[in-house]
Amino acid sequence: MQMIKTLLACAALIAHPPLSADVAAPQYLSPGEIVSVAKTEEWVPIAPSDLMVMDLAPDPNGKVRRVVIQLMPAPFSQGWVGNIRKLAAAKFWDGTSVNRVQDNYVVQWGDATEKKALPDGLAVVPESGYITAQECGDVVLSYNACLVQPAFRHMAQSADAYKADTGFAQGWPVSRSGKRRELSPAERKSRWWRQGDLRMLWPTHCYGMVGVGRNLAPDTGTGAELYTVIGHAPRHLDRNIALVGRVIEGIEHLSSLPRGTGALGFYEKEEERVPILSVRMGDAATDVPAFEYLSTDSASFAAYADARANRRDPFFNVPAGGADICNIPVPVRRKAVK
Amino acid sequence: MQMIKTLLACAALIAHPPLSADVAAPQYLSPGEIVSVAKTEEWVPIAPSDLMVMDLAPDPNGKVRRVVIQLMPAPFSQGWVGNIRKLAAAKFWDGTSVNRVQDNYVVQWGDATEKKALPDGLAVVPESGYITAQECGDVVLSYNACLVQPAFRHMAQSADAYKADTGFAQGWPVSRSGKRRELSPAERKSRWWRQGDLRMLWPTHCYGMVGVGRNLAPDTGTGAELYTVIGHAPRHLDRNIALVGRVIEGIEHLSSLPRGTGALGFYEKEEERVPILSVRMGDAATDVPAFEYLSTDSASFAAYADARANRRDPFFNVPAGGADICNIPVPVRRKAVK
Repeated sequence: MQMIKTLLACAALIAHPPLSADVAAPQYLSPGEIVSVAKTEEWVPIAPSDLMVMDLAPDPNGKVRRVVIQLMPAPFSQGWVGNIRKLAAAKFWDGTSVNRVQDNYVVQWGDATEKKALPDGLAVVPESGYITAQECGDVVLSYNACLVQPAFRHMAQSADAYKADTGFAQGWPVSRSGKRRELSPAERKSRWWRQGDLRMLWPTHCYGMVGVGRNLAPDTGTGAELYTVIGHAPRHLDRNIALVGRVIEGIEHLSSLPRGTGALGFYEKEEERVPILSVRMGDAATDVPAFEYLSTDSASFAAYADARANRRDPFFNVPAGGADICNIPVPVRRKAVK
Repeated sequence: MQMIKTLLACAALIAHPPLSADVAAPQYLSPGEIVSVAKTEEWVPIAPSDLMVMDLAPDPNGKVRRVVIQLMPAPFSQGWVGNIRKLAAAKFWDGTSVNRVQDNYVVQWGDATEKKALPDGLAVVPESGYITAQECGDVVLSYNACLVQPAFRHMAQSADAYKADTGFAQGWPVSRSGKRRELSPAERKSRWWRQGDLRMLWPTHCYGMVGVGRNLAPDTGTGAELYTVIGHAPRHLDRNIALVGRVIEGIEHLSSLPRGTGALGFYEKEEERVPILSVRMGDAATDVPAFEYLSTDSASFAAYADARANRRDPFFNVPAGGADICNIPVPVRRKAVK
């Protein structure tokens, strides 16, 4: 069973430096400072095989433009992620382009002609793939045990405008329904002390997340047409489009592109499109550094999330008392060379 | 007394086209379609004197870059807004530059040298100016009357992660505390049937909002250093920095600028800065079109906000059931020429 990885948000765990006798006020760390002093073992390496490296044509000044994407782990969106691995292996995106840049919304890339042949063997992923059913334990008090999973306990301090619980699972921003599974009469009889708790999880459209373009339902997209979020979180897309990853380096090469002047921000002229030289998985590309993310189960992440919601560093007068999930981006960095 | 202007969000008011006999499923309008069919009288003209027009140097292809900002109305942030009017009248920003572009955060402009003389007569605005106290009626049942103001009733369907009620006031995204004023013993005695309800209002850091850079508190900034939001709403800045307006046209000239590579996204080299040719109030600039916004009190806005929170147009399968305030941008457009 795939358990949700969660963050410990107990106030007691939040790391504040001790007061020295001659300092009147506590000196709080900023979120960035908390991340910078996180322990080495709180960082989780990202496998190169879970990275996708997109090299755009150099910019007008000849500067290299590389975008690095981390793909989502199981159990999320694996039908599309599998397709994307096949598309990269087939070098499908080589010679395609960035075709759409809509301000405060998305940058989209793929085959602008929509005529390029897709590789064989791509899955047709059903709409049920947008969500993940997650059995949250079936032992005594499992429902409560699930409720008090620290990630959700922490984030429950912050109500969500989109009618979900929000938290982090395996380093990713995730929304969760409050829905419980109905037990069958047999289960009810044989396991009177157990509670079923089948909840629905889905990835969340935050800045930098990568999703799969599609046509009208029931089409769900193959993964050949991808986009990333470059504005305020468009969470109305959650559960309506598959999310497959996030940009972890080089998003500025997409977010700072000229906005398209056509409908939905599509480029109107062919010469406006930004050529994609190649897209390779991280273990098939050259010069790919090692990356790591701050474990969303770690004490430092809990302290970081708390500090994002309650800024106490010197610039701030009034801590908000909460933050929406997309205002708590998971720290990702190049792995320190030792 | 400045009453909050609010939106009517009663479901009964939401405009859906009637079903025709031969159509099985209702045909819902998208948010954009709802706005496009709003009545002429639902649009509110924006006075040219409330616009600020910033002309940047042309882009590398010689293309004109004009950014139009609408300043906030009373009772919000008027100390800084007054300063900004003086700074524009004194042509303070002419010859200054855009100095900072931080991805998923802000673009900031002003005098990079910090040595240019400010015009005389700028106010030193106290921190209390970040919020606005708002008496919400003092007649019988006033507290309830205030609570059921439709804007907040609507938005209350969407919980807010930042521990505020959120809604719209005079066309602007606003947060509101639930705090009530304590009545004095004399008031309690003389007006037993009345309830004081002093609530705090403050503008909300959504995409495109314009704010006032400052140093550490108690400094609140003069208004000479401005920024706009180009990423996910940084609402931890609410009540910590003054918001004075929003970009209503041309934000792409700021949001698509190259990201700065220095700390906080500041440009490291002088030649990276984007020159500001001039900043003028709308009634002192040339070729400024008329603008209007969709009244946030209008039935069409209520329908639009509902549709943003519950997408039912054909692309969508699952309506979210809510939206955060920054995912309901107030529609602003050039006034149709008749």
